[in-house]
Formats: sequence, structure tokens, C-alpha cells
Amino acid sequence: MKGAELLVRTATACGIDVCFANAGTTEIPIVIALDVVPGIKAILGLFEGVCTGAADGYGRMLGRPAMALLHLGPGFANGIANLHNARRAQTPIVNVIGEHATWHIPNDPPLAMDVDALTRTVSGWVRRNGSPETVSRDLADAVGASLFGQIASLIVPHDHQLSEAGDKVIGEMYFAYDPVDLSLVEETANRLRTAKKPALLVDGPALRRPGLETLARIQQVIPCDLFAPTFFSCMDRGGNLPDVQRIPYFPETAASLMSGYDLVVNVGSHEPVTFFGYPGVRGQVLSDEQDKMYLCNRWQDDMEALTRLAEALGAPGYAMSPAGGQAIAQALKVPDGGLTPEKACLTIAALQPENSIVVEEGITSTFSYFPLTANVPEHTAMTIAGGSIGYGMPCATGAAVACPDRPVINIQADGSALYTVQALWTQAREGLHVITLICSNRGYRIIDMELERAGISERGQNARALIDIDGPPIDWVRLARGFGVPAASVHTCEALAKELRSALAEPGPHLIEMVLP
Amino acid sequence: MKGAELLVRTATACGIDVCFANAGTTEIPIVIALDVVPGIKAILGLFEGVCTGAADGYGRMLGRPAMALLHLGPGFANGIANLHNARRAQTPIVNVIGEHATWHIPNDPPLAMDVDALTRTVSGWVRRNGSPETVSRDLADAVGASLFGQIASLIVPHDHQLSEAGDKVIGEMYFAYDPVDLSLVEETANRLRTAKKPALLVDGPALRRPGLETLARIQQVIPCDLFAPTFFSCMDRGGNLPDVQRIPYFPETAASLMSGYDLVVNVGSHEPVTFFGYPGVRGQVLSDEQDKMYLCNRWQDDMEALTRLAEALGAPGYAMSPAGGQAIAQALKVPDGGLTPEKACLTIAALQPENSIVVEEGITSTFSYFPLTANVPEHTAMTIAGGSIGYGMPCATGAAVACPDRPVINIQADGSALYTVQALWTQAREGLHVITLICSNRGYRIIDMELERAGISERGQNARALIDIDGPPIDWVRLARGFGVPAASVHTCEALAKELRSALAEPGPHLIEMVLP
Repeated sequence: MKGAELLVRTATACGIDVCFANAGTTEIPIVIALDVVPGIKAILGLFEGVCTGAADGYGRMLGRPAMALLHLGPGFANGIANLHNARRAQTPIVNVIGEHATWHIPNDPPLAMDVDALTRTVSGWVRRNGSPETVSRDLADAVGASLFGQIASLIVPHDHQLSEAGDKVIGEMYFAYDPVDLSLVEETANRLRTAKKPALLVDGPALRRPGLETLARIQQVIPCDLFAPTFFSCMDRGGNLPDVQRIPYFPETAASLMSGYDLVVNVGSHEPVTFFGYPGVRGQVLSDEQDKMYLCNRWQDDMEALTRLAEALGAPGYAMSPAGGQAIAQALKVPDGGLTPEKACLTIAALQPENSIVVEEGITSTFSYFPLTANVPEHTAMTIAGGSIGYGMPCATGAAVACPDRPVINIQADGSALYTVQALWTQAREGLHVITLICSNRGYRIIDMELERAGISERGQNARALIDIDGPPIDWVRLARGFGVPAASVHTCEALAKELRSALAEPGPHLIEMVLP
Repeated sequence: MKGAELLVRTATACGIDVCFANAGTTEIPIVIALDVVPGIKAILGLFEGVCTGAADGYGRMLGRPAMALLHLGPGFANGIANLHNARRAQTPIVNVIGEHATWHIPNDPPLAMDVDALTRTVSGWVRRNGSPETVSRDLADAVGASLFGQIASLIVPHDHQLSEAGDKVIGEMYFAYDPVDLSLVEETANRLRTAKKPALLVDGPALRRPGLETLARIQQVIPCDLFAPTFFSCMDRGGNLPDVQRIPYFPETAASLMSGYDLVVNVGSHEPVTFFGYPGVRGQVLSDEQDKMYLCNRWQDDMEALTRLAEALGAPGYAMSPAGGQAIAQALKVPDGGLTPEKACLTIAALQPENSIVVEEGITSTFSYFPLTANVPEHTAMTIAGGSIGYGMPCATGAAVACPDRPVINIQADGSALYTVQALWTQAREGLHVITLICSNRGYRIIDMELERAGISERGQNARALIDIDGPPIDWVRLARGFGVPAASVHTCEALAKELRSALAEPGPHLIEMVLP
């Protein structure tokens, strides 16, 4: 068969079932093969940042990769920002990039770029397919590489897609963790036993229910607090799950909170650092005096290491009943009156249903949301892991594709939303149950905050021009409807509650503009 | 003064007066300096692809750089696709990228990326500022490098922006062309004299009025045809200017047209190649038997070389009167009835006023537009030089900023428009006289064409999903109004003519959806 068909057959054999794409001429053979070979659904993004962000949301939810099919260097470039977020979230993604025919590359046609250099900036694994015969091996290797929680990018020249490639579909990926270091597990257990006030800092797969159950087991023998990075990847939360705090965004608060711990054990995370480097402020959140340990590295299995740690500590089995857990879903009340960021968060927290997925990119509007929702019904939360704005709408799109039976709530800052607003259309086309809640404060308020931090109170004309997005104001209702998504604009908590309840009750996407002061 | 202020003072001293920006915390000192130092207007893009595309439009029109101020690696990454177009258009652009503080980079904070690798993929000149003291030298070098028709990217760490940097503003850029090779000019003149049927293939600055005047002089002594690449940078056209044909997009038509010339002299262009590599079709448009010459290289002055060539040929001075020129503005009539791509092009050609700027990204809808407008009133035309879709709206935005007294007509394919649709908001905020004409055919029709070329007539469900954008249809009127741009949708030539006339008569931006079959 031809290289393109072999590639798609390999992808299905390796368990890929979704392809987020914006294809061009150099990917046409693969597009055709996606119809010849059953098993993969192609989903169009109107911009590549939508495709890669959706692949991020999909991969975070399922722990296995979607394929992103991207057109040459420029198509890949458009997807880099959300791949950057995915990289920081340790999301498995397989990018397939169509490349000019090998014999045409020396002609340097208009769309030619250094695709290898571009892909390397965000990928843990990069390969340029060298011949049609190795297409299957290359794709299987890409899938295997992605399962370590990284981005794998395979560049496939057009002529290799079109050429005879043999019939051997490689369905087994190479994927094997390095063994867990049992002496390190033992040492960690000992240090946890002797520490005065230990903390575990967790990210990646261990933040999902099985990991949290193991962490709850450990907490039964070692009193310790659980933390996640400020911008963690994907966390099951609420219900009877143990509480995991986020490390605060601003360095002083973060350092002050963390200073009380004499031992911080990293599980799938890394030593916390400040988001930006502020003059006169230490870049590491922890001091040199605090004891730090890494339970495992990225080539080892976090879950296995955690289980070994629980065993080493003699932790009992997980047996937390819904009623007997430390946390009982807390009864929150929808507040009254005009919306503020805090009241908007409280309204959402009070109404978000069990089993929902919350994709949060509220930036300055949602500081209060996370602590409010520690004890609401069980749900899954995601944050902007790489800090590159415009992740929320695409990520929510991909999460809804991954989990069609779960409502997705995307709490979304307005300035960030405008980066990848085209995602709304994919939500409409695919009938995804995504509710986008726009935090409409008509500006990049985080920059205002950072200016205040820097002691700058005056804003000149140029500074205002680069911070405010209110002249003209974005008409969110028109914008959403323009992309085929029903929309409403609300000014009060009551109106937000009404619209949110109704959007949760209806299938398909909705957008609600929360007009904030 | 501080590094940031020194940088901005240097920029103004080097003639920069516009900064297209989407800044973040690592660029705040520069944002503040833009208010302290008079002379540079900051213009916000809601997405970096808008900023870089606007810098492209600005640079193409004026031949000098705007600054694009971009936030770290992800911000730059979002701007790459339109920088790729700018690179192919030989547009001068100066990118300034804020980077994490030097002491914070080893901490690998969330937004950290390999900015150097990213910038190198599209820039002819890249530098990472090494100390506050060299900020002025670095920025002046960047401006000088850009004037060769390339992208210059300067990475400036946050701490260097904040540190004392001295007061010496370097206002002189290093910018000097290599001397024109006079023996090569002489040889070109001789070969032109002896060729049976010579052609000149021109791109870059020589496509503007002074270059075209020189080409007209040459044509008076050497009968020769003038060509531009399929996707040229920026061309003055119409009125009494000599006709410059485009090399056709599809390879067979291109090769057939060009095969009649025994000599092709390149001026600021390169040997034409096919846009994609098609199996069994030669990648170069010209055959090995055709004689090819390069009058100059990119480090030499095209205009100087052309003038020397005219002198070597003994060409008379330019003395074409508006009435006496070869071309007289042709009287086109607005057609009747339902819109087709051809009738839409004819309507636009008939109505586009003298002195307008036409940014064309019509893809499959505008094949007929270019030949129609050879003899309409004089105007300036731009095309998608790098082939990366989503250039039109941002480029039109930047062109309008560069030339506020000229109406800008952006003929814009719908699928491409959706890549960078946020540009509409900048047009609204800045009150730019841009008229966006959406070629609404609700699909990526170019892929349909390429499928037909490849002999594939059947489209499965996945192929259709990746080609059609009609489910749901984009509501262009709502979308435009959502961004603050007045809009209308038209189905007939009469309605298009009415709306276009009215948009041309009014200041500020307008969008007209041309509903095509």
C-alpha cells in the first residue's frame, strides 16, 4: 500500500482514533487515507492553534494521544503556542506534518521552512521520515514516544506518502518505562517519616483519581499536605478526593506558604519557580535549606513509584467511602446582584455538576475559583500549564471530543479567548457540550497587576492602548453566533445562574459573556 | 537611562514610528518607555499573527520597518506564519522579543522556550542582547539589517530592559549595499540585445513606480516582457505603468507560458519554481535550455542595478505622459446579476479607485482579478508571498496604518480570513479605511482543486470534513460586527457595487461578504 495509507493504518493499530487537522496539499494523501481506513475521525480546526490545543485537551483527559495533522512549517508554527502548553502539561500528542516532496525541497518553494527546527522547539521526539518503507516504524515510534507524556512530531514528505510502502503495519509501539528506583522510594519513605512537616508536589498522571487514591493512602500514615504547580496539567478534584492546593502565582505568597515545609517530595513535577523573574525576588519558591526530593524521573512510571512509596510506608488500602471521606461536597449558594469576579466564581462553583470538566483560563478573574471548588462534586480541572494564552477554548474542545458524556465548562478570560476564538466553530460543528464563560473585563488585567507590582501607577496613551481592549468593545454574543454558537450576555449572578443552568441542560455548545466591572 | 528607554530612543532615532504589539510582563519596561519617549505609536493586535502581518503590510508599503513587540517564545511563535510571508516578500521588519531575566532563564519557568531557534526560522538577522550597554548598538544593527529586505529579531532580557544602560543613543544604522557588479550589468545588456525573446522577472523594490519607470525605459530599447512571481511582494500597477504579468500558479500553464523566452533576467527575484511538487512534473518552471541571469544579489541595490542596465542599453529617460503611455485606464463595467468569482472580480476592478491599495488573498476566487486590473487606475497590489494563509487581513491593516490617505481593499478568501480574523478589531480601533471583501465559498476550494489535479474525484466523510466550512456556515456580518466593523452580505453584483461604493465613500473599516456559489 501507499505510505499515507500505511501511516493511517499504523495510527489506528496504535490506538489513535481522532485527528485534529487543518490540512493542505502536502497532506492530501493522508486525508484520503483517513477515509480509506476506518477508525479515525477527522476534526477540522479553522486555525492550527485550535487543532493542537484540542489535541492537548484530548490527551490530558485520556492519557493517550490524538493526532494533529498540520500543513508544512507555517501550519506547524501556528500550532506551536498550544503545543508549548501541552509540553508543559506532559500531554501525549502525535503531530504529523506533511512536507514538500523530497525532490522539491532543494527548489525552496514559497512555503518551505525549517520544519525540523520548528518542531524541535516543543517536541520531545522529532523524526523526518526517510523513506516510505519506514513510515509504519516511524509512526509507531512517535506514538510510543508520546506516551511518556511528550510531544512527538513526525515529518512526512509528500512523495513518501504517495509511494509504495509495503504492507507491514507495525502495531506495537516501543513504550517501556525505566524501572522505579526502589532504593530512592525507600529513602523517600524514610525522609517522609522523619520530616517535621512534609509536602508532596504532584503533577501529571498522579493528579488523576488513581494517583489521588494512593496519595490519600499515604496521608493516612504520614500527615502531609499535597500541592500542585500553579498551572497544573489535569486534576481530578472535589467529592471525597484529597485536597490538593495550588502553589500561588505571586512569588511572595508562594514562598511564604511553602516555607513551612521542611521536605518537599516531587512526583511528576519539578521544583517550583516564579512565573516571571522579578527584580530582587528569588526565582525558586523553595529556599536552599528546604529538603527536596524527586521520587521518579520522566522515564519512570509515577503511578508505580507512588504505589511503591505507599507500600514502603505500610499504608493501608484505599477505602474512602463517599460519605466517610475527609471532604463532603459543600453546599454553595448562588450569590445575588451584579457580577464581580468573586461572585462569578461562586456562581459557577455552586452550579458545576458532578463529572464536569472545567478548563480554566480565567487569569485575573478566577483567583478565587480554585479554593472554592475543593469540595464541590467530583470533577476534572485543567489549567494553562505553559502560560501561553489562548489554550482554553481549544483545550475545552478537545476535552469534549475525548469525553462526549461529560459537560465541559471553560472559564475563559476575554483577552486570552481572542487568541483562538475560532475554536467555537469546531464546537458548533461537532455539537460539543462546551459552555464557554467569558470573563469580560475588556483588558489584559494581568499586565495592570504586573505594572502595579513594578510600582508603576501612571499609564500613558501607548500603555493603555496595549492593555485595554474596550475600544471598541468585543460583542461576544455576535462573535459566538457568527461561529454558530448560541450566546448570551449577563450582568448579574441571577442571570448567570439561569443561563448556565440552561446551557448545562441542553446539548451542544453555548457561550455566556459574564460582564465584569 | 534604562535599557528599555535606550532601546525606544534608538528606534525613534532610526526612523521607527509604529510598534505593532501584544506585550506581556517581560516587555513592560519597553511599553512604559513607549510613553516616555515620544515618536512611536503603539498599535495592539489581539493575536501576534495580526501584529507581524501588519508589520509586513506596513514594511511592504513604505520600504522601512515597523517594530513588532512580541511576548517571549510563544508570542513570537504566534507571529511566525506571517513573518514567513514577510520573509518571502523581502519585507523589512524589526522584531523585539522580551525574554525572561537572564538570571531566571536557568530556572526554566513555564513560558520559557528556545526563542533563538524560533526566531532563526524566519529571520535574516537574530541577536540576543548580551548587556544593557549594547542595547542601542543592537537595535540600530537590527534596523540596518532589516533594510536589506529581511526580518531582524532582537531578543532583550527583562533585566537588561530594567538596568542602567548609559545615555548614548546610536542613531546611525549600518546599512550599505555591496556595489553593483558593472561587468555583470554589461553582460546582461549584451545578452538582452542578442536574445530572441527576453523576459525580466522582477520582485521586491523594483516593482514600485521608480523601478517600473526604469523597466519602461529598458522596454523602449529592448522589446521584452515583464514578469513577477506568482506571489509577488508589492507592485504598483495600472494607469500608465508597464504591464507586469504574474507567473501562473499551476505548473503546466507556467511552464508553457515561460517556455517561449530564451533569456530570463532576474531582478530581485529568483528562478521560478512550482508551488508544490507534483509527481511527474518538473519543479523548476524554466527548462535547462533557457538562459537565466541574475542582475544582482540581495546585498546589492536592485534599483541601482536596473538604472545601470538602462544606461548600458542606452535607454532614453522616462517620459511617459499619462495619456501617452502604453496603457490607458480601461473602462470596465459593473456586471449584473448573481455573483460568481469572475463577476465579483470584475465588479471590484471596475470600482477600485485610483491610489487604492489592494491586498489580495482570494486564493481560488480571484484567478481572474489580476489580468483584469492591468489597466485600471493606478494602485498598489500585494499578494501572499510566502503562501501561508491568513496574511490578508493583518497585511491590509498594516498597509492602512502606513498609508492613512489611501483606501485599502482586501480581497479575502473565507477560509484564510478565519486564520487571523482578529485583525478586524485593530481596523476598528484605529479607524482604518480597510474594506474587506470576503470571497465566501464556505470551503478550502484550493484543496478541492488539488484533489482534482491528483485525479481524486470521490470525497469521503473525513475529506469533506477537512475541506468544507459550511456546517455551520460562518455568519460574516455578525463576526465583523462582533469586532466592531460594520458589515453587509451581498449575493448580486448590484448589491456588491452599492456596498463597495458606500464603503469607499466612508472612513473607517467595512466588511462585505460576497456570497459565491
